[in-house]
Amino acid sequence: MDRRSFLRTSALGGGAVAASSLAAPAIAQNRRTLTMVTSVPDGFAVFDDAANYFANAVTTMSDGAVTIDKKPAGELVGAFEVFDAVTAGQADIYHSAEYYFGGQHPGLYYYTAVPFGATAQEQLTWYLHGGGKELHDEIGQIFGLKAFLCGNTTVQPGGWFREPINSADDLQGLKFRMPGLGGRALANTGASVQSLPGGEIYQALASGAIDGAEWIGPFADERLGFQEVCKYYYTAGFHEPGSALACSFNRDIWDSLTPAQQSIVENAATATSIWSIAQSNHNNGAALARIQAAGVNIVEFSDDIWDAFGAASETAMNEFMDDPLYAQIRESFETSLKSSSAWLSRSEGEYTRQRNRVLNG
Amino acid sequence: MDRRSFLRTSALGGGAVAASSLAAPAIAQNRRTLTMVTSVPDGFAVFDDAANYFANAVTTMSDGAVTIDKKPAGELVGAFEVFDAVTAGQADIYHSAEYYFGGQHPGLYYYTAVPFGATAQEQLTWYLHGGGKELHDEIGQIFGLKAFLCGNTTVQPGGWFREPINSADDLQGLKFRMPGLGGRALANTGASVQSLPGGEIYQALASGAIDGAEWIGPFADERLGFQEVCKYYYTAGFHEPGSALACSFNRDIWDSLTPAQQSIVENAATATSIWSIAQSNHNNGAALARIQAAGVNIVEFSDDIWDAFGAASETAMNEFMDDPLYAQIRESFETSLKSSSAWLSRSEGEYTRQRNRVLNG
Repeated sequence: MDRRSFLRTSALGGGAVAASSLAAPAIAQNRRTLTMVTSVPDGFAVFDDAANYFANAVTTMSDGAVTIDKKPAGELVGAFEVFDAVTAGQADIYHSAEYYFGGQHPGLYYYTAVPFGATAQEQLTWYLHGGGKELHDEIGQIFGLKAFLCGNTTVQPGGWFREPINSADDLQGLKFRMPGLGGRALANTGASVQSLPGGEIYQALASGAIDGAEWIGPFADERLGFQEVCKYYYTAGFHEPGSALACSFNRDIWDSLTPAQQSIVENAATATSIWSIAQSNHNNGAALARIQAAGVNIVEFSDDIWDAFGAASETAMNEFMDDPLYAQIRESFETSLKSSSAWLSRSEGEYTRQRNRVLNG
Repeated sequence: MDRRSFLRTSALGGGAVAASSLAAPAIAQNRRTLTMVTSVPDGFAVFDDAANYFANAVTTMSDGAVTIDKKPAGELVGAFEVFDAVTAGQADIYHSAEYYFGGQHPGLYYYTAVPFGATAQEQLTWYLHGGGKELHDEIGQIFGLKAFLCGNTTVQPGGWFREPINSADDLQGLKFRMPGLGGRALANTGASVQSLPGGEIYQALASGAIDGAEWIGPFADERLGFQEVCKYYYTAGFHEPGSALACSFNRDIWDSLTPAQQSIVENAATATSIWSIAQSNHNNGAALARIQAAGVNIVEFSDDIWDAFGAASETAMNEFMDDPLYAQIRESFETSLKSSSAWLSRSEGEYTRQRNRVLNG
């Protein structure tokens, strides 16, 4: 996904902020309504589902004392204006993906996903126990925000191709749609990277304007019909191994909440993360089976292609090392990931490999 | 872990219920205190940490309107009397592992872990989106309980051995400590399975009374000093691939909670699950590195041993198929697991394999 796709597919993308109605939360009889702006349209799979889960959880747990009124992309502000709107106090909360705001601070890339980075559970390991949350708060202090991870798409597939990619050489000049740091890395391999909006991908693939594209995952991709025009689906991707979503409060609004309400928000966000992970795991398995049944080849990149992705990603990650907080976040993230991934490979990784071999053998 | 270990290591295990002090929750000024009995002593790694997180979250989010007063194993009832105590209304809530109560209903095994079953995230996929929670509630209806998954130890290692296990033949007559359905399966391979309490494992290993043992994971195992007497640690195990903990309310107490309070409980339990998964992933990685530095060989079982575990587990799982609800739960669980594991293997599994190869290569 990328910023432009949301802006273009959002009916009112870029619309002016209705500041007068948002300047202060509505307060009546100890009940208040907080406006939460998002970066996706209503009904958008995975993203909007997580936003709804979070909003409903806070509203229900607080018995309406804190009612979250969700405003989808474009209704009050454009999809990618939400960070600035909440920073400026024009909205109370945003629910989005932090890497859209890497331009505001590159450390925010780590609070969605980075190439060759953490899976969903590895990221939450860092976030909840390895210092990630505290560093997230340091970024928040700069901008007057208080944010929490709040949802996760899980690993995003390598994507859809009309022709198979047999070696890293096949990446040269390949016209491929991929946003973010992953896209910057892919460009380093010699590919011609584009950031088409979601609503234009299908047509671009069908017309031959691009050779391939990644979007989110089987469940969301299937809805866009890519299986009709691409017969090769690479299920493992290097670019977004566990893309977190986040909720972020205007700091003054956050500070005005009671300790109980703050705890409700934090636990609602944490619950949203695992609810969302489980949702993707549940739906993607069934969708992948349908995609395969539709005649799509379910394939993986070869080792030399992964090697090329790895070198290209390292280059992309190094571009921001002159920012001290980015460097600190990267070191914290990589230290946690090295430890958790070593353990997970030897335990859960080996278990699932053996289980699947024994049960399917 | 097993039941007996908790009973024996609990100072007051098997003590009589102080029924008069527990018969009704304390209610004052719309504030009530609910007694939560657990199956572990205070400070017990992973288990008690999850119980504390849950109790604190409910108490804080409700601003003390529902204050959970945790009573560790033995203080009011014995470690494994908690199910019966809450069913009978002698305590309000228990926090434990459901497989301890497989004797009450065999379907409960699926709400902790079963051999060759789900990892933590696969189990939560089934629980939150695949029908697992609804079937949990069916068991609860039988016993007057309302339960939620609430914590997870993650995959439990194959365990500690004084001598390496080179083939399935080496399991014949092996004196090994393993509880639960996994232990029943291991016995089917020809091993001599024992259920020693946790506090007796170290001495049994050191004296040669047993040849090996499993406990929980590196972080918890290290505290018991197994690295001093065993030099082979098999990190992947077949018996408990993601052991969930659970909180379970007396149904009358549950029904007396407001919708907001019920939502607080449910979201607190869900948040506890991922907080707990992340805690184990965080601590086990560091502990494994220390164990390895202490001279322990970190190893894996060979394919033929896993094959033997697989056949033995199938036999153990089939023993309860005459119970219709057990059979229904098993089918629901395996349907979800087949779908989620197929997706996870092709996406997250392939990603992590390639990432670790590229970054460590």
